[in-house]
Amino acid sequence: MRHRMSLMEDYRYLILAEGEFGPLTSKTANSAIRYIGDRVVGVIDSKQAGRKVQEVLGFGGDIPVVGTLAEGLEFEPTALLIGIAPSGGRLPLHWRPTLIGALEAGLPLVSGLHIYLSDDPELAQLSELEGVPIHDLRKPPEDLSISLGKAREVDALVVHTVGTDCNIGKMTAALEIRRSLVERGASVGFAPTGQTGILIEGWGISVDSVIADYIAGAAERIVLEAAAANDIVLVEGQGSLVHPAYSGVTLGLLHGSMPDVMILCHQPSRTCAYGAGGAFRWMPIPSLPEMIAICESAIRPLRESKVIGIALNTSDLSEDEALTARDRAEQQTGLPATDPVRWDPKPLSSAILDAAAAKAR
Amino acid sequence: MRHRMSLMEDYRYLILAEGEFGPLTSKTANSAIRYIGDRVVGVIDSKQAGRKVQEVLGFGGDIPVVGTLAEGLEFEPTALLIGIAPSGGRLPLHWRPTLIGALEAGLPLVSGLHIYLSDDPELAQLSELEGVPIHDLRKPPEDLSISLGKAREVDALVVHTVGTDCNIGKMTAALEIRRSLVERGASVGFAPTGQTGILIEGWGISVDSVIADYIAGAAERIVLEAAAANDIVLVEGQGSLVHPAYSGVTLGLLHGSMPDVMILCHQPSRTCAYGAGGAFRWMPIPSLPEMIAICESAIRPLRESKVIGIALNTSDLSEDEALTARDRAEQQTGLPATDPVRWDPKPLSSAILDAAAAKAR
Repeated sequence: MRHRMSLMEDYRYLILAEGEFGPLTSKTANSAIRYIGDRVVGVIDSKQAGRKVQEVLGFGGDIPVVGTLAEGLEFEPTALLIGIAPSGGRLPLHWRPTLIGALEAGLPLVSGLHIYLSDDPELAQLSELEGVPIHDLRKPPEDLSISLGKAREVDALVVHTVGTDCNIGKMTAALEIRRSLVERGASVGFAPTGQTGILIEGWGISVDSVIADYIAGAAERIVLEAAAANDIVLVEGQGSLVHPAYSGVTLGLLHGSMPDVMILCHQPSRTCAYGAGGAFRWMPIPSLPEMIAICESAIRPLRESKVIGIALNTSDLSEDEALTARDRAEQQTGLPATDPVRWDPKPLSSAILDAAAAKAR
Repeated sequence: MRHRMSLMEDYRYLILAEGEFGPLTSKTANSAIRYIGDRVVGVIDSKQAGRKVQEVLGFGGDIPVVGTLAEGLEFEPTALLIGIAPSGGRLPLHWRPTLIGALEAGLPLVSGLHIYLSDDPELAQLSELEGVPIHDLRKPPEDLSISLGKAREVDALVVHTVGTDCNIGKMTAALEIRRSLVERGASVGFAPTGQTGILIEGWGISVDSVIADYIAGAAERIVLEAAAANDIVLVEGQGSLVHPAYSGVTLGLLHGSMPDVMILCHQPSRTCAYGAGGAFRWMPIPSLPEMIAICESAIRPLRESKVIGIALNTSDLSEDEALTARDRAEQQTGLPATDPVRWDPKPLSSAILDAAAAKAR
């Protein structure tokens, strides 16, 4: 039943970011370095070979940037992570020797690309021949089914990070809240629903990549799994119930995960829906009270679930602006609000611990 | 741009329903006979060979049931339609000679199965060799993208049949309403979103079969296409915003199609959500006023859209019960209500014509 990507959580990564390693370009590489940097042994980018990751990204410490796979192998990686996305969606020809070389060297491939490496005939054949796995983080399990609503019956408190928009920090908020909860002694599971969360945790399902009929079923499955071993489950949110492109994924995820309570994630500077080069400028972000009503109404026919806190992303605000935004959010909603990256996530972990205690009673 | 399944709308069908032709078993066959019976030349089922379709289904007239493909070919079909679903989801071995024989006889295959015939290596190869197409009705186009919300900008009046549950008659209601609108001289396009609608119309996208990220994008595409040539577009609904398994598809379809107005479909005898052998008995169907509020609230952040009429499915009620249900629906909602199959769809087509006139002003 466990949808772990065998041993992935123990991999020591060499990251392929050839020609594109940088703060704005190599998104997957950067997430890996930020969240599981202790398991990153090096980054391949011949243009920046010889530098340290810290010098390129501004974080990441002494992890070396190397010019070739052969140089990277000296740092004893146990897997190769694709850290960049190809433009045009196809596998670039010049990546192929590196991917083949990695498999031949016994390194599993880990990829969050939309295209699946395991569907590439040459790579798939070599993977089988060498007995070295390919992990496509976005590729859903083949045995998904529809949700039966079972997640509403688990003993664990299910917490879902919903948002006023996509790309707003729902995964980051959940990870920071988890850290806070763990520090306070709670038994917490994180249910990953996107490729970065799956990379970090070593399991999960990319819910926006499944067949539409199975969105809720995928959410149900990972919640049941995370709930089996923990008292609190944090379900990573995706998109927004008012995002013109992604709302279907968001509602399916909400109804499949059946949260007891929700944390609403918001970026105060965001005024209209994100994505597609500004194509959603016509779509204003609702106010926090409006968005709380939208989220609670969307699940009310299935079960009662309340937003119990606001996680703000104030990364583009000054300290003063951030404090003002926090105070305003608390005044508008009457709920605890914090930026769990900038400040202590404690107001949110406290609200969750209170809810867990109430559910256990 | 047009996602027609080349010439499918002109096919004269021989239907494969071997061993399972009957009122409750051969769902796709029965839909084809009901809606495009004038293009059905025969049904293959060796157990019932020699009978007429009318004798088996109670409708369908003199269409013959034959024992073999060879016998069926005498009625000059131009395509073979798979009219039953295999138990277990795999292609039954005993179907294979018929499918191969059909392709060899120059008959395209048309299938609404979850498994794609065009993915079967032997059938795909033969299809290419003979130059005879395979149409998998559920298989989405490969070039789907996310919705940009463009459907809100079309000149045509976009009408979406939403529902209080899945499997409640949303397609049937839309088809009956279309008939009524066409009789009254309107230029109406039907945007099919499920395999039966696609079979009937010869084009469309099965929105529950697309990658989750593209639900709204698929809806947007078919609405833009139907709107280009018509003054009114009827978008076939799927599922329900409160169905625990399918709500994600429903919201994506709603946000992608951006209807000006909605028709709410309801079966008065239905008390809890449909499907999975009664697994959703815990999920009560909301009242009509509640469901209207849910549908209108779900799209309000993106655009204002109102439910303007109620389409009832009273197929399991007596005439008296049906009339009572209709009166009650009208009293509860203040909207026109009718069973568009049992009675005249006119109350609904009138409401739509009024809305079209108001939009054109």
